[in-house]
Amino acid sequence: MKKKTLRIIPLGGLGEVGKNMTVYEYGGKMLLVDAGIMFPENDMIGIDYILPDAQYVLDNKDKLLGIVITHGHEDHIGALPHLLDQLDTTVYGTALTLALVENKLNRRRFNKTVRLQTIKAGESLQIGPFKLDFFHVCHSIPDGVGIGIETPAGLVIHTGDFKFDHSPVDGWPTDYSKIAELSSRGVLALLSDSTNAEAKGWTPTERVMDPAFEKIFREAEGRVIVATFASLVSRVQQIIDAAVSAGRKIAFAGTSMVDVMGIAKELGYLHYDERDIVPLDAALSMPDAQVALVVTGSQGEPLSILGRLANGTNRRFNVKGGDTIVLSSQPIPGNELLVYRAIDKLLARGAKVIYNAIAPIHVSGHGSQEELKLMLHLVKPRYLIPVHGERHMLQQHANIAVDMGMDPRQVAVVENGRVIEFTHGEMKLGERIPGGYVFVDGSGVGDVDNSTMREREQLSNDGVVMVNLHLDEKDRYKQTQIVSRGFINDNEAEEIWMELKERLANVVGSRPEDLQRATFNSTRNLIYEETGRQPVIFVAVSKA
Amino acid sequence: MKKKTLRIIPLGGLGEVGKNMTVYEYGGKMLLVDAGIMFPENDMIGIDYILPDAQYVLDNKDKLLGIVITHGHEDHIGALPHLLDQLDTTVYGTALTLALVENKLNRRRFNKTVRLQTIKAGESLQIGPFKLDFFHVCHSIPDGVGIGIETPAGLVIHTGDFKFDHSPVDGWPTDYSKIAELSSRGVLALLSDSTNAEAKGWTPTERVMDPAFEKIFREAEGRVIVATFASLVSRVQQIIDAAVSAGRKIAFAGTSMVDVMGIAKELGYLHYDERDIVPLDAALSMPDAQVALVVTGSQGEPLSILGRLANGTNRRFNVKGGDTIVLSSQPIPGNELLVYRAIDKLLARGAKVIYNAIAPIHVSGHGSQEELKLMLHLVKPRYLIPVHGERHMLQQHANIAVDMGMDPRQVAVVENGRVIEFTHGEMKLGERIPGGYVFVDGSGVGDVDNSTMREREQLSNDGVVMVNLHLDEKDRYKQTQIVSRGFINDNEAEEIWMELKERLANVVGSRPEDLQRATFNSTRNLIYEETGRQPVIFVAVSKA
Repeated sequence: MKKKTLRIIPLGGLGEVGKNMTVYEYGGKMLLVDAGIMFPENDMIGIDYILPDAQYVLDNKDKLLGIVITHGHEDHIGALPHLLDQLDTTVYGTALTLALVENKLNRRRFNKTVRLQTIKAGESLQIGPFKLDFFHVCHSIPDGVGIGIETPAGLVIHTGDFKFDHSPVDGWPTDYSKIAELSSRGVLALLSDSTNAEAKGWTPTERVMDPAFEKIFREAEGRVIVATFASLVSRVQQIIDAAVSAGRKIAFAGTSMVDVMGIAKELGYLHYDERDIVPLDAALSMPDAQVALVVTGSQGEPLSILGRLANGTNRRFNVKGGDTIVLSSQPIPGNELLVYRAIDKLLARGAKVIYNAIAPIHVSGHGSQEELKLMLHLVKPRYLIPVHGERHMLQQHANIAVDMGMDPRQVAVVENGRVIEFTHGEMKLGERIPGGYVFVDGSGVGDVDNSTMREREQLSNDGVVMVNLHLDEKDRYKQTQIVSRGFINDNEAEEIWMELKERLANVVGSRPEDLQRATFNSTRNLIYEETGRQPVIFVAVSKA
Repeated sequence: MKKKTLRIIPLGGLGEVGKNMTVYEYGGKMLLVDAGIMFPENDMIGIDYILPDAQYVLDNKDKLLGIVITHGHEDHIGALPHLLDQLDTTVYGTALTLALVENKLNRRRFNKTVRLQTIKAGESLQIGPFKLDFFHVCHSIPDGVGIGIETPAGLVIHTGDFKFDHSPVDGWPTDYSKIAELSSRGVLALLSDSTNAEAKGWTPTERVMDPAFEKIFREAEGRVIVATFASLVSRVQQIIDAAVSAGRKIAFAGTSMVDVMGIAKELGYLHYDERDIVPLDAALSMPDAQVALVVTGSQGEPLSILGRLANGTNRRFNVKGGDTIVLSSQPIPGNELLVYRAIDKLLARGAKVIYNAIAPIHVSGHGSQEELKLMLHLVKPRYLIPVHGERHMLQQHANIAVDMGMDPRQVAVVENGRVIEFTHGEMKLGERIPGGYVFVDGSGVGDVDNSTMREREQLSNDGVVMVNLHLDEKDRYKQTQIVSRGFINDNEAEEIWMELKERLANVVGSRPEDLQRATFNSTRNLIYEETGRQPVIFVAVSKA
């Protein structure tokens, strides 16, 4: 590495660039910002989640000084257990962020001792050659930070996920003055959140939801069941406040909801009178009009409380007529189907269902176009690197910057793994480090690769057929066993198997050189002729 | 069937009710409105499309007087080849609709002669006890109609897909006066399009796109490639007009685009100067700034022109830097992933990409809330049956009607298959006829059922493992062949197979009663212990 060169490498992602993990390197030392997971896209069959490929970090772990976490969301902390399994380092984050990290490590029965160091927005911290200045940002989880990262090569601002809410529920707006102060030092590069680069205007304040929640709690004649993300601590604060003012008691349901609210209350991020929160069983025995339940499952996940309520498989309580169910969330792109299926099932069970399409009960945690422009104008960076988004979002973010007068050569839309080098104030795009991401499936990490995924796709398209051809002691045709799974109905298949057995008897009679291959070909051809399908075919030839 | 009773039965669908096929029965006679297909939801693995279950129609085909088609979209005509294969009847539709039906039958090499009878908006037609009045409706394909269906039991209005565009591209607004005339006779029931029941306001006129297209064609320095649905004939008219006024020649690419535009031009639904349309090859050899291509693939479908351009697999031309690519469409819900992947790949190839999120180049073909209210006020029906939507959309449509003052008992949110009976002006919900829908996969119709789908899901989650255990002539362990597909990496699997072979040798040695079952259990248990996975397992035991 050259002297006075800062290297930045976004890692992980699939469609999304620079979201889950970012490497900063200077003077032979390395700092990692965030270590999150991705959720699979809907054609990644059987995959639970996806890790950024951290091989580069592992290969250079002697240089690693620490991992700084911007906020406590899964896509920023979820890869920590896997990473900390393989290296020893210190994790830095705000109190809530580290409490969520600890909760995650405990749930995974993580045995190693991990060094966690609490930081606060507004503080500075020197880690090796990196001087860090943390500034508070509003997001959909409390106590998120952006970071000024200063090295002799210059000052970089890494926003993390942010928006500029002027009336946040926790009363703590994004720290304009700290950003302005950093800006006054002269900023070399800005890595800025692109999630809502396609959304015009300004993301509405969280406060717009208050009247909607108040109306819902006031007008509901039965129970109100609100599903939201456990991480939306401020949202739950709004729900509690509205429910209490309508004379209702609140109970939490769902492991992550109970866990996170306990942590948030203990650390002072959530405020309520202890008498207003009751255990779930107590709530279930109270008159319906005096109850509000706050549950997990706003994405329609089948195993969440809301998913189980929709499917009628929840253990402790069921949906009933008169219930008002509120989904305080927006379907994650690709998840619309699951969410609307759950809504339709809840409606069919007689509940009234309120969701974001019909009432203002959700706002995004990310800033829209005008907020991205404000960040750019506040920071006045020499270079912009749009991050945290799919390519089309990064491109829109870049277009916005160019429309504001930035030189296109000072804006870099990059892929994950691309090395971005800054030397003497100049940006240069370097090589792309090898690697990508790692599929996690069931209990396995990384034992599923792309060719396995392709095989699964073929299996899922047309199923599998196993042909077991038995020969007698004189190598004459004796019988054939055929079994299929996921192919076609057994009745329909039976006719094809009768025909296949005749053909195979002839194949054996014609004594081909490679009987296994000939059997496979006959099977494949007949199935294709009869059904137009191409299942996976296994052939075994057994000789007596 | 009782005297003077009208029965209405919505058929087909999955989430969506009353979209693809509706049965009207009176006095022992039956009329069908529309015969369309559904597209699979993204977890219906390997399914190409879905037919409504027409068993009820086939069981009563002696009563069937005809099939009336409201407009030429796939979800309203796509099931005709399958249905006409199994029964003889007359198909009624407007000129464009029938031309698209004919094109579809020809493409399927349909051999039977089919009776097609052209109708016109504004005309009336008596078919048995059904007096039909066709009225023009605006939609995203020209020459769509709604239908007044009158029997001695009363007058029903079936809107079909509609919106109230005040300045449609073809100059032909929805026929308010015909609807008002029908309304003056007294309308028993309204079956009305619910697609946009969750969209506030009024769907913008198609004309809002003109300035956007003009700007794109004027500012583009290279080729402009516009992807849209072939059925959006008016959209293509707008694209042609804007391209011509910017001095460009136009070529069509993609089978359905070429087919439909040929039909639309011939029948007078599309207007252009022959000199402005050139063959694709000619367009490709002209200067880039003088060319516009109109192609298929606005949903990112991998085999469409746009999909192949994104993947670099198109035969006759490729994307190049300087191309401007326009997606004049909105991703179908669940399809966002495919569309944005295509966009990201096109951006990576250096094209400028314009899509609905960043410019007004698409509007919906369905009316929004204020239009649904207008339809209700124009028609003034005694009963409302919201159709053409998922349950939550129907419910929203019902809520709108109740907010307008309708008695909730006069609004029926129903499922497909529910019999709705009208006698002496009173509505009664009857039984639900058995059946649902039929999966179509490859060349097979209905040979894939739900249990096959579940097997495919298991295969796609964890793959398949085949174990072939060979015994020697004395029934002692000889060897084991193990093959897997879609399971885990071969390297990782190899260790498990070595272990499995040892275990199976022991199993054989212990001489269990059912060796096949014992082999299966050992395999399943070991795989689960080692990987946490549950692939489909096949076992064959071969004795020498």
